[in-house]
Amino acid sequence: MSLSQFFAPRTVAVVGASTNPTKLGYAVLNNLLRGGFLKEDRRVYPINPTAESILGLPCFKSVLEVPDPIDLAVIVIPYPAVPDALRECGEQAIPAAIVISAGFREAGWEGAERERELLEVARQYSIRLIGPNCFGVIDTITPLNATFSAGMPPTGPMAFMSQSGALGAAILDWAMAGRLGLSKFVSLGNKADVSETDLLQEWAADPASRVILAYIEGLPDGQQFIRVAREVSRLKPVVAIKSGITQSGARAVTSHTGSLAGSEQAYQAAFRQAGVIRADTLEELLDFALAFGYLPPLRGDRVAIVTNAGGPGILATDAVERDGLRLARFEPERQHLLEQFLPGAASAANPVDLLGDARADRFDFALQQILADPQVDAIIVLVTPQAMTDMEQTAQVIVQAAARASIPVLACLMGQASLGRGPDILQQHNVPRFPFPERAARALYAMNQYRLLRSEPIPQFTSLEVDRERVSDAIRTVRAAGRVSIGDFEAREILLAYGFDVPTTELAGTAEQAVEIAARLGYPVVLKVASPEILHKTDVGGVRVGLEGPSEVRDAFDLITYRAQRFLPEARLWGCTVQKMIAPGLEMLLGMNRDPQFGPLVTCALGGVFVETLKDAAFRLAPFSRQDAEAMLTELKAAALLSGVRGRRPVDREALVEALLRVGRLVVDFPEIEELDINPFVVYEQGQGGVALDMRLILSSQVEPRR
Amino acid sequence: MSLSQFFAPRTVAVVGASTNPTKLGYAVLNNLLRGGFLKEDRRVYPINPTAESILGLPCFKSVLEVPDPIDLAVIVIPYPAVPDALRECGEQAIPAAIVISAGFREAGWEGAERERELLEVARQYSIRLIGPNCFGVIDTITPLNATFSAGMPPTGPMAFMSQSGALGAAILDWAMAGRLGLSKFVSLGNKADVSETDLLQEWAADPASRVILAYIEGLPDGQQFIRVAREVSRLKPVVAIKSGITQSGARAVTSHTGSLAGSEQAYQAAFRQAGVIRADTLEELLDFALAFGYLPPLRGDRVAIVTNAGGPGILATDAVERDGLRLARFEPERQHLLEQFLPGAASAANPVDLLGDARADRFDFALQQILADPQVDAIIVLVTPQAMTDMEQTAQVIVQAAARASIPVLACLMGQASLGRGPDILQQHNVPRFPFPERAARALYAMNQYRLLRSEPIPQFTSLEVDRERVSDAIRTVRAAGRVSIGDFEAREILLAYGFDVPTTELAGTAEQAVEIAARLGYPVVLKVASPEILHKTDVGGVRVGLEGPSEVRDAFDLITYRAQRFLPEARLWGCTVQKMIAPGLEMLLGMNRDPQFGPLVTCALGGVFVETLKDAAFRLAPFSRQDAEAMLTELKAAALLSGVRGRRPVDREALVEALLRVGRLVVDFPEIEELDINPFVVYEQGQGGVALDMRLILSSQVEPRR
Repeated sequence: MSLSQFFAPRTVAVVGASTNPTKLGYAVLNNLLRGGFLKEDRRVYPINPTAESILGLPCFKSVLEVPDPIDLAVIVIPYPAVPDALRECGEQAIPAAIVISAGFREAGWEGAERERELLEVARQYSIRLIGPNCFGVIDTITPLNATFSAGMPPTGPMAFMSQSGALGAAILDWAMAGRLGLSKFVSLGNKADVSETDLLQEWAADPASRVILAYIEGLPDGQQFIRVAREVSRLKPVVAIKSGITQSGARAVTSHTGSLAGSEQAYQAAFRQAGVIRADTLEELLDFALAFGYLPPLRGDRVAIVTNAGGPGILATDAVERDGLRLARFEPERQHLLEQFLPGAASAANPVDLLGDARADRFDFALQQILADPQVDAIIVLVTPQAMTDMEQTAQVIVQAAARASIPVLACLMGQASLGRGPDILQQHNVPRFPFPERAARALYAMNQYRLLRSEPIPQFTSLEVDRERVSDAIRTVRAAGRVSIGDFEAREILLAYGFDVPTTELAGTAEQAVEIAARLGYPVVLKVASPEILHKTDVGGVRVGLEGPSEVRDAFDLITYRAQRFLPEARLWGCTVQKMIAPGLEMLLGMNRDPQFGPLVTCALGGVFVETLKDAAFRLAPFSRQDAEAMLTELKAAALLSGVRGRRPVDREALVEALLRVGRLVVDFPEIEELDINPFVVYEQGQGGVALDMRLILSSQVEPRR
Repeated sequence: MSLSQFFAPRTVAVVGASTNPTKLGYAVLNNLLRGGFLKEDRRVYPINPTAESILGLPCFKSVLEVPDPIDLAVIVIPYPAVPDALRECGEQAIPAAIVISAGFREAGWEGAERERELLEVARQYSIRLIGPNCFGVIDTITPLNATFSAGMPPTGPMAFMSQSGALGAAILDWAMAGRLGLSKFVSLGNKADVSETDLLQEWAADPASRVILAYIEGLPDGQQFIRVAREVSRLKPVVAIKSGITQSGARAVTSHTGSLAGSEQAYQAAFRQAGVIRADTLEELLDFALAFGYLPPLRGDRVAIVTNAGGPGILATDAVERDGLRLARFEPERQHLLEQFLPGAASAANPVDLLGDARADRFDFALQQILADPQVDAIIVLVTPQAMTDMEQTAQVIVQAAARASIPVLACLMGQASLGRGPDILQQHNVPRFPFPERAARALYAMNQYRLLRSEPIPQFTSLEVDRERVSDAIRTVRAAGRVSIGDFEAREILLAYGFDVPTTELAGTAEQAVEIAARLGYPVVLKVASPEILHKTDVGGVRVGLEGPSEVRDAFDLITYRAQRFLPEARLWGCTVQKMIAPGLEMLLGMNRDPQFGPLVTCALGGVFVETLKDAAFRLAPFSRQDAEAMLTELKAAALLSGVRGRRPVDREALVEALLRVGRLVVDFPEIEELDINPFVVYEQGQGGVALDMRLILSSQVEPRR
């Protein structure tokens, strides 16, 4: 269902409108009126059981008394009365409600109970709900200001949603100072009903919104968010800041809105897969918003820098390269023209140093030349106030260049006291200004991320040949035995069913059986303890490798049995598995654990010291595409190891990609798998495949799978 | 010699003072007068060959005509006349000159020649020189404004030096807008004479300067800078931003001032060893300046956050933890009092959420409680403009708290339109304001860096038993043979002389000699080709390990000889070295190469894939202290490997530290060593030492050592 009633209603009821100017119920009504909502056939209905009229509008005792169909109700009454008020909205067939009142989930278990009741009412009457515990909604095009903000922000290309009302208020305050223009603004509050995902979907098609911004604490509908954001981010940039990424931060999130912060790895994977550009700081969020909102799309990574100050030009150069972009190399004829026109001491090469005495005309000439150069994808113009600088005229020149340009032109007027009307001139013409060169470069970094993201092929979700029934059987057997952990002998069944290569392995109940099996498989072999209770076999001395003949196999069997019994007397012992010893290769670790918000988080890591001492691992949320699996391999810090170093041949990447996709499929098909580790997955040289040598798997303790 | 004449002269001559207001020579004179320099017995003498008087002051044709001793000359005339003008200053015994004129080293080789001439004159007459090609000097206490800036910055605790005049101008502009107050300002220009190091020394004792700030492109006197900065940074914080750290940036530095940018690793090591706090961006430089300039020193890492906005509070929490500080845990009685006073929905635990309706009194109470808590080392106060917020009164409350506090109180007023006089109130009382929570946290990060740095023991430069003569002999022998590279057999001499454990090794000229030696050393042994021309022995098949008996030694000798001859027919073959095979251990790499600005840069890295694929290495400039060597080991990304992982025992750190110190000593004692690699250095378990297995060393091609 469309959420359009929240943004462009014809009629609005303010439930809890107040005559007292210090009350929120007054502020909301006042904002609706001052914000210019009332025009043509639009109507606002204050609802107040006692007042006759407020701010010149006649009051109604209840929405039930309003004789006109109501599109949107804004509820600002004390929490105990909210559920009943919403019920009345339902009776009156109001399709959308914003609940500003606090006192719900954020206020402990009683509040949570009340929120559940509220949601039930909404569902019963098919009312879409924003909040509770929120700051309200603004649409600057309609115009609609259904918040208790101090004023109406200027209109502009940015749609902003915030899980924090106060942060939203700060954003509005920056906007009202003219720093950015908003199309839509939603304070999501407790997100009982309408979530980030709903708004993404709604704003994807909104022509007034060029960029979607979000402040996120938690995303309970994580998987759905990824699916929607993946589509939307192809249409317009989605920029998000996620709070609660550290331990203390996550604790603070829980005590703030009672939501879960989720793991940083899961969010990193989610944003990556969803195509969401991440801002690391609030300042970045605003800078990125300016860049995406007001600049033409970036088409390449070649940046020109024009400056009247050498030092800042170098800082910009450093920042551009540090942020993964390149300095443009000008066409020879452009460079030649620049050299001819500029004074001898100037630098006509990129970064172009116009010298401290550059006036506006010199900027103008340089910008014209550079804009005509097809080798340039973006320009950063740095101006510092010096003796000869005419800041305002230079700002005019930048504005003209930006107006002509089909590429991003970023202005950086440094300093403060001598800028005159320079910043205002830029702002009036929607040329984003960055006070420091590094911030301009960082904005280009974000634009470049978005460019790369859009140029990626649409992710393909390959179908794989798997045998689900065989895995269901295996799981059923384990469950029937009252267990939740699956060791390697049973795990082998599952791996085989999902198309993994596993070394030939057979279970031996006695030492003599082990010798027989070894003879059949061929020496050397490996013996491993087989017991449903023993998952970490090496810890109990339960693995013996490189056994070369019958007597070694007998010794190993007895030793393993003896030690396993001594270490874990209560463990059931099935005997030992006998495995043909496989050739050495590069040891990888493939794993999965379930994130409470996003579900199956699949890991890929190099084995041994890499993952343990360097925390070197890549993550994706399943389901993920073939490209995602390939990207995981390149994201590893030790990725070079896969391509072969020190004379080693490159490994079989295809085998690794395939294995990751199969792990992804397995954990999506069987939500009852809580945790999984294939360790090691031994991968061989290109074309030689890989082998899953051992797997450990934990089922969820509830028998009913979570779906 | 003191540089005080640059900052507090009694008499100043402006050579090139002009009557034309568009000329720099006018601007400088005007700034001196407007800046308030003329008081008591102070005098300014305009020097101009034609004018009678300028700005009401009588003119002189030359400094030679001035009847009064002159303390400082400011030279602003076209470059061809500068050397002669300086000579006249010398004749007049002027001790200090600022050369603003450009057209020297930055303008190509002719300019460089002119700069050499200028420096010669200065040396001849013992004139200290700032510039040429600079923006001038300011002292706000004197007050002296010997620049062509647009005005005089407000006085304050920050001393700023800049290699870029334009960047300096931008800093002055921010200062003039009231964002920061300066004690001293120097634009260093080409640094023909006075350098960053000189100013550090001068400003160390300046009571008006609480923090020293520097914009640095290159440091030709790198080693001297480290020695001085190490002392000064113990007295007051030194904050620097270094430009030209990327490839393109370094190229831009060279074309900007003709100086070398130096390697990023060398600067990182230099700043670390010198105790210089590094700012990564210009914005950070200013933020750090505010923090160090206006806040009391940080005594611990426990931060309290007080906010009227949950979301920003969480962002601050994340940032604090990300930046290596901790959230304070309040004393139970404080927390109890907070709980009692604050509304039920507020959070009395850190981060303290006062709720959106908090007015100034609630901030006041919370700040009082928290300031009284000895468990808190710093406070970040976040205020967002909300319906009930009284921004100005809240700013007053913060100002009062900061005045009472002996710990840093950082204010973050978010937003812009509704802040009223809040920011001004903070500024008037020198309470630094950070517009975003992450920037406040980052400023605390810098203060915490400084705290840790000051708490480090004074570095001890241990003396080591070494045999310099033996190394001199070895080097002389190699030189005599007309070579510059030293392979392992000769390198062994050097390693032994500097106290390294090396495996017993003997040179065998024939296969039979090799067998004899092997019998004496004991099997197994290693054979390596011995040739002055072959440095990378494995590349030519010149190493055979694990030889178990005479026939294997004979085979290996012949095979090595045959292959070496085939691969490098022109190489002189001395035979093979025979080495007792040593036990396996952790392989490390110890190395050195010479940085053009800082000299010997010593590397420590884990061998093999770590250094090759992960670029995992730690750096220090020799000479370095024992603590530095210890810190190198912990700075490695794979540091955990040294402490033992996966059941391995920790390695002998002491042996590694000792080896690093000996490498440092060797390369300081012998500046003719250009490059050195001990690879591998095999280190054993704690207490078992380490062995330098192989070394490769390159001498500088000029026979005279560089000193």
